[in-house]
Amino acid sequence: MKFWSQYFVPTLKESPADAEIASHKLLVRAGLVRKLSGGLYTYLPLGLRVMQKLAQICREEIERGGGIELAMPHLHPAENWQQGPRWPAAREIMFRADSSGEGKRSAHEPEFVLGPTHEEVITPLVKAEITSYRDLPKNFFQIGTKFRNEIRPRYGLMRAREFVMMDAYSFDVDDEHAIKSYHAMKAAYEAFYRRIGVHTIAVEADTGVMGGSFSHEFMVPAEIGDDDVIYNEQSGYAANRQKAMSALVPADLKDAPPEAAVEEFATPGIVTIAALEAAPYAVPADKQFKTLVYMGDGKPFAVILRGCDELEEAKLGALGFTLFRPATPEEIEPVMGAKPGSLGVVKGTIKNGAALAGVFADHAIRLVGNGTTGANKDGFHLRHVNVVRDLTITKFGDFRRVHPGEPDPKSGQPLQLRRGIEVGHIFKLGTKYSEKYGAVFTDDQKQSHPMVMGCYGIGIGRTLQAIIEQSHDADGIVWPWNSAPFHVLVCVLDPQLPEAMDLAKKLATAAERAGADVLIDDRAERPGVKFKDADLVGIPLRLTIGGKGLKEGIIELKWRAQKDVAKIPLAEAEARIAAAVTGARSQANA
Amino acid sequence: MKFWSQYFVPTLKESPADAEIASHKLLVRAGLVRKLSGGLYTYLPLGLRVMQKLAQICREEIERGGGIELAMPHLHPAENWQQGPRWPAAREIMFRADSSGEGKRSAHEPEFVLGPTHEEVITPLVKAEITSYRDLPKNFFQIGTKFRNEIRPRYGLMRAREFVMMDAYSFDVDDEHAIKSYHAMKAAYEAFYRRIGVHTIAVEADTGVMGGSFSHEFMVPAEIGDDDVIYNEQSGYAANRQKAMSALVPADLKDAPPEAAVEEFATPGIVTIAALEAAPYAVPADKQFKTLVYMGDGKPFAVILRGCDELEEAKLGALGFTLFRPATPEEIEPVMGAKPGSLGVVKGTIKNGAALAGVFADHAIRLVGNGTTGANKDGFHLRHVNVVRDLTITKFGDFRRVHPGEPDPKSGQPLQLRRGIEVGHIFKLGTKYSEKYGAVFTDDQKQSHPMVMGCYGIGIGRTLQAIIEQSHDADGIVWPWNSAPFHVLVCVLDPQLPEAMDLAKKLATAAERAGADVLIDDRAERPGVKFKDADLVGIPLRLTIGGKGLKEGIIELKWRAQKDVAKIPLAEAEARIAAAVTGARSQANA
Repeated sequence: MKFWSQYFVPTLKESPADAEIASHKLLVRAGLVRKLSGGLYTYLPLGLRVMQKLAQICREEIERGGGIELAMPHLHPAENWQQGPRWPAAREIMFRADSSGEGKRSAHEPEFVLGPTHEEVITPLVKAEITSYRDLPKNFFQIGTKFRNEIRPRYGLMRAREFVMMDAYSFDVDDEHAIKSYHAMKAAYEAFYRRIGVHTIAVEADTGVMGGSFSHEFMVPAEIGDDDVIYNEQSGYAANRQKAMSALVPADLKDAPPEAAVEEFATPGIVTIAALEAAPYAVPADKQFKTLVYMGDGKPFAVILRGCDELEEAKLGALGFTLFRPATPEEIEPVMGAKPGSLGVVKGTIKNGAALAGVFADHAIRLVGNGTTGANKDGFHLRHVNVVRDLTITKFGDFRRVHPGEPDPKSGQPLQLRRGIEVGHIFKLGTKYSEKYGAVFTDDQKQSHPMVMGCYGIGIGRTLQAIIEQSHDADGIVWPWNSAPFHVLVCVLDPQLPEAMDLAKKLATAAERAGADVLIDDRAERPGVKFKDADLVGIPLRLTIGGKGLKEGIIELKWRAQKDVAKIPLAEAEARIAAAVTGARSQANA
Repeated sequence: MKFWSQYFVPTLKESPADAEIASHKLLVRAGLVRKLSGGLYTYLPLGLRVMQKLAQICREEIERGGGIELAMPHLHPAENWQQGPRWPAAREIMFRADSSGEGKRSAHEPEFVLGPTHEEVITPLVKAEITSYRDLPKNFFQIGTKFRNEIRPRYGLMRAREFVMMDAYSFDVDDEHAIKSYHAMKAAYEAFYRRIGVHTIAVEADTGVMGGSFSHEFMVPAEIGDDDVIYNEQSGYAANRQKAMSALVPADLKDAPPEAAVEEFATPGIVTIAALEAAPYAVPADKQFKTLVYMGDGKPFAVILRGCDELEEAKLGALGFTLFRPATPEEIEPVMGAKPGSLGVVKGTIKNGAALAGVFADHAIRLVGNGTTGANKDGFHLRHVNVVRDLTITKFGDFRRVHPGEPDPKSGQPLQLRRGIEVGHIFKLGTKYSEKYGAVFTDDQKQSHPMVMGCYGIGIGRTLQAIIEQSHDADGIVWPWNSAPFHVLVCVLDPQLPEAMDLAKKLATAAERAGADVLIDDRAERPGVKFKDADLVGIPLRLTIGGKGLKEGIIELKWRAQKDVAKIPLAEAEARIAAAVTGARSQANA
């Protein structure tokens, strides 16, 4: 048991000025963290206790899922990254570390970087240590600090420069086993979130800069979340919007019969979808083709969407470029022959089609029959354009942003949209890293193969804050049992009375024997202050001992999540408290 | 229980080429760590288990000593350091952290640095949060990674770029309470080292760049240690040689009567003590004065020793300069009037005495009567020089290196010398940091005072390695019970026999019930390989189950630290193992 007067729980009446969301305010007000600098937080004793509890439960579940714990350095030789597949993209969000001595200006290329994740360290380690199929599968994990050079850190622990993560890396002999490892980790994640008392949904997700074949994110539904989730409750379909698909385009769609030959018409000054929708042209947006030009690893490529659709930029990741960005007008004109606003990919109209790395069309353009598109001639468009007959297309794909109301790909029912906080991520990586680093094994026929990898991350600090975001009221935090910094708060209203303190210690001991962590509020403060702090800090079970109650022979028992206060005769107090603790524990671990 | 075949213990027959000392070799060979780069190590599963055990025992003892755990960021805003008292010295050993983006060359002054210790973060935090004597004392600690830009990392975890430390910071109302906190921590350290089974000695130590009034180091005696300890077993005196004193100079010493007036004599080409000892001059070294010139924060100062003594450079730290270094001949000549080899501080001979920030004389020069020193004139010395009559001295102090055999300051008996590994350090800091950062409190008279601080560090990784250095034999590590990665190794010689594996699990369960962590060696390896690995990895208690033994109805029980093997009838096995575990546990925690 700890005594508040000798402990350190600096609660605040006011929220910090930079806190925009409830969980960030409560983190600081309840004395869980203090900001050192933007995106850098000290975990105060209560905050650290929650972090340690989450880490321990995470460790247990990941071990149950096959994980073997180790700990890799935070400093990575930059050359490990330079040899890997994502250095150009990753270095932009990484810190470098160099000598800080006076006058020691650092070289252009860093010697060390601070790890945001550890594929670049674990893969060479596994390459050096594991050579035979006999030693596979292996799944290594660690729980530790990661670094990310966030330009705009915000939301407290949500987007920080330094944060605590569980990261795991699985190595298997083939795809089938890798998928088994993936599902074991998915189950471990689900068990972890269940035990710590946070509701999450697993959604299909984009693999982003990690690469890899498929992935799931674990989302805590919350208004303030950074991510959009597209889902249908009945069918169970759920995906990050960056990845979400809809059944808008029937699989058996055929081109509408062409109405006429392609025809050029003058559109002076018309360079937007909206302008072409207006009179005198009156071409509906869903009858227009939208032509976007991007640069992928230095080469231009085109993306074609319906005029009424938006590009979901993350979906371009599937095209395999390491880095991509919108092309500038100066990059576009020499290739297409016109400025943005008059572009199109009708056969024979592109000035230098050979310069294009590809023309990638969203499936939904197949819904456009006899549409209109730019003529690659400033001030001119083309009409009666049909997809198959007229357009130069390298490949169809899913590039458009899905909107709620569109049909669910599983059930055809309308999709819904909600916001979520990403608290965990699992990736099937494939052989992207193992091939780069030569992490191969020999099978029982003495044949060499690259290991098939998965990687996995849980943001422990983010999860802590997501719990608060999901579980608070107007007065403060309402901790789930297994995440709470302490389970029982013994509030002593008259700590100057020796009999009150003696009873507090006796009841605390009874609670501890039943498996609870106990904090005794023995401060010389008014009852109002103590109750306000108790609600703010949010410890699940509060026992109140006062001089008045002692005379009446009672103490009070109150659950933070409930309104009513139970008065308990002193003679029954120890047994009732033990029963309350035992009940709460078994419910939390059910 | 863990199964070796599914775990990860990559033992090696050969030592790594860069390992010079036994503990470094064994760390790698026993599969505890792997090097990522110079001074950067991955803790493999066994190594991490030891680290976690040491950290947990450390946490328990520091909490018992009054510590409150929190966790501060690894990245520190450089301005926190720039405001503090040791930035010029500390920045030389620190990493800076900057954006690593391509083409982003960093500015001269860093934005962030990686913390080697955290005075610069905790003191402002305490200043912001604690204002009243009612909230004192407080002692905050954390266990986490520290960074140090070692130019020549070596000895494995001993001198690494990244290392795990417990660091604590105490805040008290006055000196008396600060000393109480200091002694509570000293007791906590002693309990920690006792529990983990490593023999340490507490020695008086230099406060170095930390500043502060006094300090102790905890040393593990070891030939390969970086530090020299001067001690006397009987009296209990023990000090780091950088700080050690001897009773060489009697406290009541008076100057010998001068023999004659100071006299100059020519010594062409004579610029060393040894040359002046030789014919024709024949001046014994202990009758010479040695005059050294240093630069302290940009100003020259002189240090005077006997010719036979060496300067213990760390002792100059007591003079209060932030940075000091030997002066160059070019810096010396304009001040003294001569080049090194002909220097002295006889009154009236220094060319520009006003330029000197001081002349600091070692006490032992008082043993020199009628000595010889440089004339501050190249090629000339002075004889018949007497300390009080002739020398310009600002202050006496202890600057010489102590040698074994000199009298112990406590008992007068001969001092001894041994080498040690520093595994912990405690400092009484005083108000150096609290004054800089304005960490003040209001007393019960509403008067404001700076808090009196102490700071404390235990190198967890260093301690791990010191345990190995202290506790190994030709075959491998011999773990003390409480530091061992596992307590019991069940060696199954015929894991293909289901009855052998069933028995292994049954015995492992019995050991676990008695409080042991158990590893089962179920690999398909020859017995010789298994026994060699068992000795190398050093788990305290080994149980061996073989097909042959099973037929005979016995298993074997062997302690790693002992030679003999006990054969145990199967019927008694569970009880005997439980008793062995219980006995070892209670002995380790006695």
